[in-house]
Amino acid sequence: MSLDPSVAATLGPVRIVGTGLLGTSVGLGLAGGSARVTLADPSPTALALARDLGAGAIDPGDVEPALVVVAAPPDVTAEVVAAELARCPAATVTDVASVKAGVLRELEHRGVDLSRYVGGHPLAGRERSGPVAARGDLFLGRPWAVCPGPKAGPDRVDAVRRLALALGAVPVTMSPDDHDEAVALVSHVPQVAASLVAARLRQAPDGAVALAGQGLRDVTRIAGSDPGLWAQILSANAGPVVEVLRALRADLDVVIGALGALAREEPGQPAVGGRSAVARAVAEGNLGRDRIPGKHGGSPTTYTVVTVLVPDTPGALARLFADVGAAGVNVEELALEHAPGRAVGLVEMSVLPAVGEGLRAALTASGWQIVA
Amino acid sequence: MSLDPSVAATLGPVRIVGTGLLGTSVGLGLAGGSARVTLADPSPTALALARDLGAGAIDPGDVEPALVVVAAPPDVTAEVVAAELARCPAATVTDVASVKAGVLRELEHRGVDLSRYVGGHPLAGRERSGPVAARGDLFLGRPWAVCPGPKAGPDRVDAVRRLALALGAVPVTMSPDDHDEAVALVSHVPQVAASLVAARLRQAPDGAVALAGQGLRDVTRIAGSDPGLWAQILSANAGPVVEVLRALRADLDVVIGALGALAREEPGQPAVGGRSAVARAVAEGNLGRDRIPGKHGGSPTTYTVVTVLVPDTPGALARLFADVGAAGVNVEELALEHAPGRAVGLVEMSVLPAVGEGLRAALTASGWQIVA
Repeated sequence: MSLDPSVAATLGPVRIVGTGLLGTSVGLGLAGGSARVTLADPSPTALALARDLGAGAIDPGDVEPALVVVAAPPDVTAEVVAAELARCPAATVTDVASVKAGVLRELEHRGVDLSRYVGGHPLAGRERSGPVAARGDLFLGRPWAVCPGPKAGPDRVDAVRRLALALGAVPVTMSPDDHDEAVALVSHVPQVAASLVAARLRQAPDGAVALAGQGLRDVTRIAGSDPGLWAQILSANAGPVVEVLRALRADLDVVIGALGALAREEPGQPAVGGRSAVARAVAEGNLGRDRIPGKHGGSPTTYTVVTVLVPDTPGALARLFADVGAAGVNVEELALEHAPGRAVGLVEMSVLPAVGEGLRAALTASGWQIVA
Repeated sequence: MSLDPSVAATLGPVRIVGTGLLGTSVGLGLAGGSARVTLADPSPTALALARDLGAGAIDPGDVEPALVVVAAPPDVTAEVVAAELARCPAATVTDVASVKAGVLRELEHRGVDLSRYVGGHPLAGRERSGPVAARGDLFLGRPWAVCPGPKAGPDRVDAVRRLALALGAVPVTMSPDDHDEAVALVSHVPQVAASLVAARLRQAPDGAVALAGQGLRDVTRIAGSDPGLWAQILSANAGPVVEVLRALRADLDVVIGALGALAREEPGQPAVGGRSAVARAVAEGNLGRDRIPGKHGGSPTTYTVVTVLVPDTPGALARLFADVGAAGVNVEELALEHAPGRAVGLVEMSVLPAVGEGLRAALTASGWQIVA
């Protein structure tokens, strides 16, 4: 299954080096299209498995690739990219490592031909790793950062953008430094914050965590991530991450100072400015939250949330969404809330404001209990 | 609609003081049961509105209540509780303020009869406020902290627990101090962290936020909260919150120290221990995350996640959940993922591990594209 065969046909022979989750998924996504896909991996087992899964043929060594995709572990990416640039003197070489400036710096240090290298970073991943977890549509609808260095040829940048498009991803072109600062903000610092908040729960009494609600669940969802993998990612982007963390700590110090003064407050001696400092921190969060693009990459949209009580039984969601569909309403966002201690769930459906009241009326008429 | 009429019947006459979101929702939840519900509010407009919505009768002053529910703003809660203890010399008096130790301290200071006061805190709320936003089932399935002081009578504690049960909530009894430390951990500190992470996005370039994924959306969802309300909540619980924030800052300093050393690392001179300190921070987050109870208040369960690609059109979710229902599978958790720039969505359904493979097979047979 090639996700976009018309684009895949323009890629020429593609050589994938590294058949873990990402490399095998690239192969599966291109397989069946007109592009010839060959595979290489230092592990014969991983290589044979990727071939058996249908990701491509084991590279016989007699094909001159037009595009090489290096999907090696982050700490050897630059070394493998350099070797591929030497091995394939006409090919465009890209990679999929999640941090980009360090790879380019190391390649500059090695003095390789940087006109043919364009770094890439598909923002897709899974909780599982390895070729068995690979999926041909892993990248579908996800951003794929395309990060040319200053010496990269425009046709090479175009080749990597076409790779992303062939896999159904959305290419976003930016410099390696801009990329690393961006992922520090939108991925790496949120991971650190989620881990630190969750870590505070380790010693919490059972009664305390019994009060947990959806807010805590949302904030700490990604705190379940793999420590080894994240140590590698955060270390590789240490500079940009530490810069954002220091700014965050400065904001945290303001909040701690204000709350500390309020905690020491005596009747008749209010801590001047404490409440307004706390309100300001939350208000600045409002402004930042509004920067996150809405669904489908468009501008943030304010949706109306319709919350429905559903029994926790098979078929209940089917009946609900049949009724939603019958009302002709499209659900933009969806969440099933936990109902501690009860065999019911709350389904929160975000819909365009214009259809919210109509949906509430239609569902009420169908016998659903609308909570909000 | 009384959510549990058999329990509501044991409450006796209930007087609700304060007809905002929470007070009106309590009235609506008890209305229609055998308990007589009367309402009071300093605002005649809010009072009349709550009555018109069906939350109860305007208190004629000739009813001796068995239970008084004070749903006043947090900063006047203690004052109103004291007035009600004096006004209704036989009644149990409770409140719904989100921070508990300060109210009790102020009542002790006033020298009132503390045997009849039992603080409460329903962990429910809405983005909107006021009586119009009230719902009789606002508390359904949510925890309701019941926080007796040392002098509270056991029958008084029982009365407040029965109020929670009558409204469909899950009573959780704990001391006021334990409560305030608990909400600092599970609600107030996550709010601060989400706001601080979101605030970092204010000045981010458009290209950076274009790389945002589900992780960032989860971490910052509650960063959209009302600054004025949260300044009041955080100020009222300043002591416990600042204690947790200081511990979090100490952990943050360790991560900043480790990443700072890694950022300065030169080839051949590795920053000793930096990576392991970062990995430890993420691992401790894993442990804390595991403390959060799973759905329905039970032990955390590991679910299998089945991810399905759905076209972004009305009726698609209905067809999907009809097929899920036909397979006899119950969906435990549900999320609709964003697909930036594409008219498709990814529906992630968490199901019990035993039924995951069967569901994948059934949905594939029905023509759905399973992503994971």
